[in-house]
Amino acid sequence: MKCSVYIATSADGYIATPDGGVDWLHSAGNQQADMGNEDMGFQAYMASVDCMIMGRKCMEIIASFHLTAEQWPYGDMPIYVLSNTIKTPPENLVSKVEMYSGDINELIGKLEGDGYKSAYIDGGSTITSFINLKLINEMTITQAPILLGEGLPLFGKINHPVTLQDAQSRVFANDFTQVKYKVNYL
Amino acid sequence: MKCSVYIATSADGYIATPDGGVDWLHSAGNQQADMGNEDMGFQAYMASVDCMIMGRKCMEIIASFHLTAEQWPYGDMPIYVLSNTIKTPPENLVSKVEMYSGDINELIGKLEGDGYKSAYIDGGSTITSFINLKLINEMTITQAPILLGEGLPLFGKINHPVTLQDAQSRVFANDFTQVKYKVNYL
Repeated sequence: MKCSVYIATSADGYIATPDGGVDWLHSAGNQQADMGNEDMGFQAYMASVDCMIMGRKCMEIIASFHLTAEQWPYGDMPIYVLSNTIKTPPENLVSKVEMYSGDINELIGKLEGDGYKSAYIDGGSTITSFINLKLINEMTITQAPILLGEGLPLFGKINHPVTLQDAQSRVFANDFTQVKYKVNYL
Repeated sequence: MKCSVYIATSADGYIATPDGGVDWLHSAGNQQADMGNEDMGFQAYMASVDCMIMGRKCMEIIASFHLTAEQWPYGDMPIYVLSNTIKTPPENLVSKVEMYSGDINELIGKLEGDGYKSAYIDGGSTITSFINLKLINEMTITQAPILLGEGLPLFGKINHPVTLQDAQSRVFANDFTQVKYKVNYL
């Protein structure tokens, strides 16, 4: 199973403010910029994945957006939410996500058995867990042009050396930047 | 006085390992890449500054390199090292740097009085202090393609919102990436 990351951070590497807020992400950057149809690679990325695994906090942020069916960005691909504490998703995500509390490699095995080939891994703790299991193969990180100064970091403690290669880099009219890497484990 | 930053971090935003080590920076990336004369903008940046202010830890790392006169990268521009604890520099930097323990704005005023116009600010704590004084105008951050997982972060706690604009982005053959921003304070 290919496992990849497509996530946004502040320029100082936070995915949320200390209380989990992500409003800054939507107000950051040059709001007057003409972005045309530029979606910073999101649709192309979505076309490359067929299932999704995210953490509980990530799910709760998505739930808080109260997205309409038209706004739902993840199509109808299966979404597994990792949590050892919560057994049922928030009401507005009941038909959208499935909670999972077991072993991550078993979940990957189950998804592979069901024919899935490429998983979108989302949420800081979940991404760090997957890196520590040497499961993430590719990362696309979009940086908003803002310093938060504190918050929830994208990466937590990593247990082994991780080197990145095949770097790509882009800048957008709104002053967001984006890097893409393949991930290697020693 | 224009104050700017030219610094390298890991892809997860650390400038050094927890013990201050920067060896990873020299071994990171594709060592087989043909970089030609590519210096990732360092000489052009050096030509844009005429004085330097760095933190004590930064100075100690530079001292530990035991650079020869030919290897010394900072020309003959004046270098002030901020420290409230150390009054004399390491022996091999005595003729190269001057220690300073006073107010940062007074130091800037003194340098301006001496005719200096563009300061290179170096070291994580020093950069954060300068941002909190709203003194940094421009930042060039080069990211090495490696995750350290822990270490000394480039940015510490920032006391006020900082937005970035005029983003530029580059990628190099060795898989290092670089962003450059102008810095705004609200």
